[in-house]
Amino acid sequence: MKNDPVVAIAGVTGAVGAEFIATMDRRGFPVRKLKPLASARSAGKTIDFRGERIVIEELTEKSFEGVDIALFSAGSGTSKKFSPAAVRAGAVVIDNSSAFRMDPNVPLVIPEINAGRIREHKGIIAVPNCSAITALVPLWPIHRQNRIKRVILSTYQAASGGGAAVMQELVESTRAYLEGRAFQPSAVQHPYAFNLFSHNTDIDPETGYNDEETKVIKETRKIFEDDKIAIGVTCVRVPVLRAHSQAITFECERPIPEADVRAILSKAPGVRIVDDRAKNYFPMPIDASGQDDVLVGRIRKDLSDASGHSISMFVSADQLLKGAALNAIQIAELLPQHAMA
Amino acid sequence: MKNDPVVAIAGVTGAVGAEFIATMDRRGFPVRKLKPLASARSAGKTIDFRGERIVIEELTEKSFEGVDIALFSAGSGTSKKFSPAAVRAGAVVIDNSSAFRMDPNVPLVIPEINAGRIREHKGIIAVPNCSAITALVPLWPIHRQNRIKRVILSTYQAASGGGAAVMQELVESTRAYLEGRAFQPSAVQHPYAFNLFSHNTDIDPETGYNDEETKVIKETRKIFEDDKIAIGVTCVRVPVLRAHSQAITFECERPIPEADVRAILSKAPGVRIVDDRAKNYFPMPIDASGQDDVLVGRIRKDLSDASGHSISMFVSADQLLKGAALNAIQIAELLPQHAMA
Repeated sequence: MKNDPVVAIAGVTGAVGAEFIATMDRRGFPVRKLKPLASARSAGKTIDFRGERIVIEELTEKSFEGVDIALFSAGSGTSKKFSPAAVRAGAVVIDNSSAFRMDPNVPLVIPEINAGRIREHKGIIAVPNCSAITALVPLWPIHRQNRIKRVILSTYQAASGGGAAVMQELVESTRAYLEGRAFQPSAVQHPYAFNLFSHNTDIDPETGYNDEETKVIKETRKIFEDDKIAIGVTCVRVPVLRAHSQAITFECERPIPEADVRAILSKAPGVRIVDDRAKNYFPMPIDASGQDDVLVGRIRKDLSDASGHSISMFVSADQLLKGAALNAIQIAELLPQHAMA
Repeated sequence: MKNDPVVAIAGVTGAVGAEFIATMDRRGFPVRKLKPLASARSAGKTIDFRGERIVIEELTEKSFEGVDIALFSAGSGTSKKFSPAAVRAGAVVIDNSSAFRMDPNVPLVIPEINAGRIREHKGIIAVPNCSAITALVPLWPIHRQNRIKRVILSTYQAASGGGAAVMQELVESTRAYLEGRAFQPSAVQHPYAFNLFSHNTDIDPETGYNDEETKVIKETRKIFEDDKIAIGVTCVRVPVLRAHSQAITFECERPIPEADVRAILSKAPGVRIVDDRAKNYFPMPIDASGQDDVLVGRIRKDLSDASGHSISMFVSADQLLKGAALNAIQIAELLPQHAMA
């Protein structure tokens, strides 16, 4: 991998696409040349990057000639269709979709947890589901010290997880509500203004779990390399714009005092403790928005487990950053040192 | 108790006060005379009830002469200050505040669960906390068949729980956000537009649990008459106007198949199952708003408990109705048959 790679972005007009660019810019990621790619509909439009106006090209199988890194965030179908061409052209694909996450040949990477897996890639590296990332960044350092046997988590997921169109629908439907106008949902199935609903992904008719929940369970096991970790999860979409929150209760193999969790998390990469009981100040989506860290607070003994093996906490993280674009760029930053290993 | 009682409402101008009146009206609750009471600030204003315009009087210790039923929803301090006068005047107080809930001499009643306790009152009957009611109406019929040992629940609580001022602040702060105007929070501590925050009640500095969470734990034990039920709870305020939702995971003493829960809840009073996996249709606050029933869905095996003793589900209920005014009126409806027993 060259130290100043040619970078293609597939899905540059989406919510995550915009954050790929902003994140590279903010972190000074070296880019020799940027190739913004999108569907035919957006081809010909322009984006601004480091003082240059660049024309968006249509994403095709021929888009990847000379490309070193291809960042994908245009949905699972697009990743499946165009990643092979990118890999054949010699690019490393960093894929934000669910297309390849559970493929045993594809590393599923959260750099704070398993950066070492990057070197095993065969052309594609997958970015985990945003809810998985949000939960696992703080759970991993605890798990390493005192194995987590069981996790029960409920999500409070932002509109951004559904992309720019869902964010727009939250804003527009809320505006209509406040103005007393009718609004016909189109980006999501249910009315979104001042409402919440179970996560809008397909549901397994047998188990009753939706795809988002299944992803959290399977991806956690792959990333932690622990097939036995027991996970119960409920994914809910709330009328928040761009940061995901979660109420997490977890049970460790050995007793785990609250103070241990605090000590571990205070040194954990990618984590910031926000836990002020006197001021009633804890993680909130508006504080997590635009931030790299997963905010963690409300760290306390789970009162439903008298044995002292369980802790509850509440977390918020920017779904577009650590949940997607930032995690991808962090992987890209690690490529030079791993790709040739 | 007379069959057409004189009813006083302390806190008639609040969000619950308005629902007391609407609920009595809708259910045809017999009222010989209505005495709307509020603080000096609202005295002299009028309300409409069954075609009559009635002047609001200032709530004082002398307000309760000739009153048979006094419905209180004006905060814990007001209940503590004025309930004794109401009881001395011969009224039965049905109190929506937390003032007397844990008093061993005060029945804490959800009619679907423990209507029989009403007859033990010594002048005051307490309405439980709205989050407790929302969880317990569906948990009770299960608990009766297969004792629930442990509950872990996360709430998605609406603005209405904080009263009319908090509902107004959610609307006004959201309007300001959409119009790009600054907004200074006053009814709640944190920005509310498109944001969520840990429940805005005091926090025990030792345990880290807030008052709302502590109420759920203590009131559940009192209502279920089960001091051993283990409860872990996280209470969160979300930008929803008037119905509370909860993600609930519970563990029973014996294995509990999903089908058993469905069978029990399909016959449970005050419960409506809304659980369509094919259509991705589950309980939502907008559907629960204005409804009497607690909506229950996403009923499924908790995948974190391989033993089959645990179930997860998602519920929504109107905080102002079943969580407050409706539960109080249901108690009032039962007074004639119990008061003289």
